[in-house]
Amino acid sequence: MTYTLWEIARHINAELHGDPKCEIKNIGTLEHATSGEISFLSNNRYTHFLESTKASAVILKAEHLDSCPVHALVMDDPYLGYANVARLLYPDVIAEPGVHIKADIHSTAEIHSTAHIGPYVSIGSNTKIAANVYIGPGCVIGDGITVGTNSRLIANVVLCDGVEIGERGILHPGVVIGADGFGIANDNGKWLKIPQVGSVIIGNDVEIGANTSIDRGALGNTIIDDGVKIDNQVQIGHNVHIGEHTAIAGCVGIAGSTKIGKRCMIGGAAGISGHLEIVDDVIIMAMTGVANSIRKPGIYASGVPAMEAKIWRKNIATYRHLYTLSSRVNKLEKK
Amino acid sequence: MTYTLWEIARHINAELHGDPKCEIKNIGTLEHATSGEISFLSNNRYTHFLESTKASAVILKAEHLDSCPVHALVMDDPYLGYANVARLLYPDVIAEPGVHIKADIHSTAEIHSTAHIGPYVSIGSNTKIAANVYIGPGCVIGDGITVGTNSRLIANVVLCDGVEIGERGILHPGVVIGADGFGIANDNGKWLKIPQVGSVIIGNDVEIGANTSIDRGALGNTIIDDGVKIDNQVQIGHNVHIGEHTAIAGCVGIAGSTKIGKRCMIGGAAGISGHLEIVDDVIIMAMTGVANSIRKPGIYASGVPAMEAKIWRKNIATYRHLYTLSSRVNKLEKK
Amino acid sequence: MTYTLWEIARHINAELHGDPKCEIKNIGTLEHATSGEISFLSNNRYTHFLESTKASAVILKAEHLDSCPVHALVMDDPYLGYANVARLLYPDVIAEPGVHIKADIHSTAEIHSTAHIGPYVSIGSNTKIAANVYIGPGCVIGDGITVGTNSRLIANVVLCDGVEIGERGILHPGVVIGADGFGIANDNGKWLKIPQVGSVIIGNDVEIGANTSIDRGALGNTIIDDGVKIDNQVQIGHNVHIGEHTAIAGCVGIAGSTKIGKRCMIGGAAGISGHLEIVDDVIIMAMTGVANSIRKPGIYASGVPAMEAKIWRKNIATYRHLYTLSSRVNKLEKK
Repeated sequence: MTYTLWEIARHINAELHGDPKCEIKNIGTLEHATSGEISFLSNNRYTHFLESTKASAVILKAEHLDSCPVHALVMDDPYLGYANVARLLYPDVIAEPGVHIKADIHSTAEIHSTAHIGPYVSIGSNTKIAANVYIGPGCVIGDGITVGTNSRLIANVVLCDGVEIGERGILHPGVVIGADGFGIANDNGKWLKIPQVGSVIIGNDVEIGANTSIDRGALGNTIIDDGVKIDNQVQIGHNVHIGEHTAIAGCVGIAGSTKIGKRCMIGGAAGISGHLEIVDDVIIMAMTGVANSIRKPGIYASGVPAMEAKIWRKNIATYRHLYTLSSRVNKLEKK
Repeated sequence: MTYTLWEIARHINAELHGDPKCEIKNIGTLEHATSGEISFLSNNRYTHFLESTKASAVILKAEHLDSCPVHALVMDDPYLGYANVARLLYPDVIAEPGVHIKADIHSTAEIHSTAHIGPYVSIGSNTKIAANVYIGPGCVIGDGITVGTNSRLIANVVLCDGVEIGERGILHPGVVIGADGFGIANDNGKWLKIPQVGSVIIGNDVEIGANTSIDRGALGNTIIDDGVKIDNQVQIGHNVHIGEHTAIAGCVGIAGSTKIGKRCMIGGAAGISGHLEIVDDVIIMAMTGVANSIRKPGIYASGVPAMEAKIWRKNIATYRHLYTLSSRVNKLEKK
Repeated sequence: MTYTLWEIARHINAELHGDPKCEIKNIGTLEHATSGEISFLSNNRYTHFLESTKASAVILKAEHLDSCPVHALVMDDPYLGYANVARLLYPDVIAEPGVHIKADIHSTAEIHSTAHIGPYVSIGSNTKIAANVYIGPGCVIGDGITVGTNSRLIANVVLCDGVEIGERGILHPGVVIGADGFGIANDNGKWLKIPQVGSVIIGNDVEIGANTSIDRGALGNTIIDDGVKIDNQVQIGHNVHIGEHTAIAGCVGIAGSTKIGKRCMIGGAAGISGHLEIVDDVIIMAMTGVANSIRKPGIYASGVPAMEAKIWRKNIATYRHLYTLSSRVNKLEKK
């Protein structure tokens, strides 16, 4: 598919500087784009690639217009512009409707005629698959499940009994929704498993990354609200509630019964303890450990950045008895 | 299934305060339970929900009896009481025995007549599946494996050649048991793979969470003893040995050849280095890094809790040269 | 298979001390090896097992020769010796060629006649599977993929459309290659998905551990160079580039667009932020957070090792206002 720069400018609401008839077929990075491709500049780390770019046009902020050697589309948020151009140039491919002859569908399951069910998919009793849903090879869909319109389960996704997936969801390979939560009680030194009788309710427009797991509730449900975006290898415990439009980066772990607000951003490999409450609009930086509720919007962190190992070793040696350092300073001050 | 409060009190060994004939059908949280449901109070964070609960009865400690507006079952450990009521009200569902017509079973595999084998399961040569085992859709069971009585592999679980699963095990979707450990030797700047010829031996009553992986031994076996409970997204390296009744929360990583004792509790996202020994009854808090053996029972930690980012930045700046702070205090003290 | 000690010494290029005709059938650990088995000593933690070993022979450094009670093979790197003996004694098993009757292969896919395709594998259009490739049960291979000679996908591996796997690769169960990267742009408080139109290119001799995920590029490709070894549960974001012969331990997360050099070693559960550059020959210790580019070879760390919880609590209390401690010392010094 090809668009003129004028069509693209109008689509992403940018100010056009250059030839409106220039034809754009693809997107490329500033560094590697060639003729017929549009690029963008939003991260200042890449500004030095601008002057030598071979792209036909670049989406950028007004402040970079003068340094741009090619056609330009100016807007406040070039990254959003890039997103919208990418969605224009690379629309979703619609899969052929129909149930693969090598799928195993329970007689009571309701599969919409426009849905695509791939090979080696199994679908349990009383499960409802809505219009235009894509279920790729090897997915295991249990009993009593609903999958909403236009949702896509790419491959080898497991939905356990009773879970609900909203509309336009995207579940990447290896995702597991609705496995039992980690519910155990100690009985004289042995662990007793507690039946996990809640479910998982996932709203609309939720994307869930590869090999991420979201446990079913112990009692009541685990809830992921509309517009939440979750990266790969994330673990979400039972009865967690994630508010609308919160984004969670890779390798994050969220322990049971924690409630996270709307529009939060959780950095990679952060860990959040159980039974906490985190209000709306909280940003948690990568590798942060959250052990207490956060009641005020803002940015929080606790990660320790890398240093040369010989410095690190000396710092750790001091850190091991940091509290004594504090009391030594106390004493000195009293003198 | 419905039980009277009297039956429940007797089952969980609690002191009944209220109507013994009150009928209980379900369990609910203090906040959301309704008539016909029993609830429990064990975490003090939720005490404020007690006075307005709509549950028919609450399991609680003696100290909360006076504040309870409904029938009560008093015991020292209400969480254990809840666990036992849940097991009473929600017993395991027994799957229909038989091998699904769309499963692929090697001619030398022995499948007990009471076992359930789902669709798209493959089972290799000389593998033995015991009585009442449940193997859900998409599981891959290699050669020479044994799965003990009453164990359940939910879906898309992979057991590699030769691994042994005990009785009453539960393996959640995406679990991988017996993949090769990370055994490589450096040969002039290139890595040489070392064949991993040990196996994985998993005892009885072990539960393993979604997308968790346990590697086979390099030489000798990786061993998970009876009663161990492992949450989701956990990584256990080759030749690790986990002692009886140890519980491991989500996202933990345990490197090769480490030996962990009995009845340990390992918090979420903790990391444990290789070749260590951790004695019995050790508690490791969430996000702790364990770099040395632990030879004394007790509680250990190293996680840094979140703080506001502007404070964090200043602390990190000081931390980067913490050892100099220590020597500066030394000097001041000498004066 | 049995070899004489003389054959083994020659194979691993070691100096033989003892009976050249001694027959070796297996490898065992110093602690557990028995007659007919060879062992090795490379980690000093295990030196105390040497004097009582029941192995027929031990591979060790010259410095341990005098303490060795049995035949010895002396060399500078006994671990490399062990690796080479293991490869000699336990060669790869070659699977029977052919496509399983219960596999689903697109008519345009090209499967080499020597390849093994297991049950419940699906292979998409225009995909090319080279000679001697092993694709185990439940793997999902999309469209337009190439898998190079002698590569092995053990079970339930997912390759998304267009990815390229080199020769002699090993992909363990649950691996996901080429899922969409975490590309989202904020549009007035809602997240807009950005199509991920790059791919993943994996070189030769790459091993990838269980449940690891490597995302496809947003624009351009994610690239894993020859000889890279990746452990389990690792997350590699879109457009990451990993240089030749770099080794990455379990539970590591690498965020998007980061470039890692050759021959690096990344310890378990380390986290590396996005858009960074790490030069060749960098060692990053376990649980380190890398927030900035590393431009100098060397060893880097930031993990905090476990301490007793009561000490930890006091240290954290001081750490929370560490910057004030620094300024208090400043003041004292000025007096």
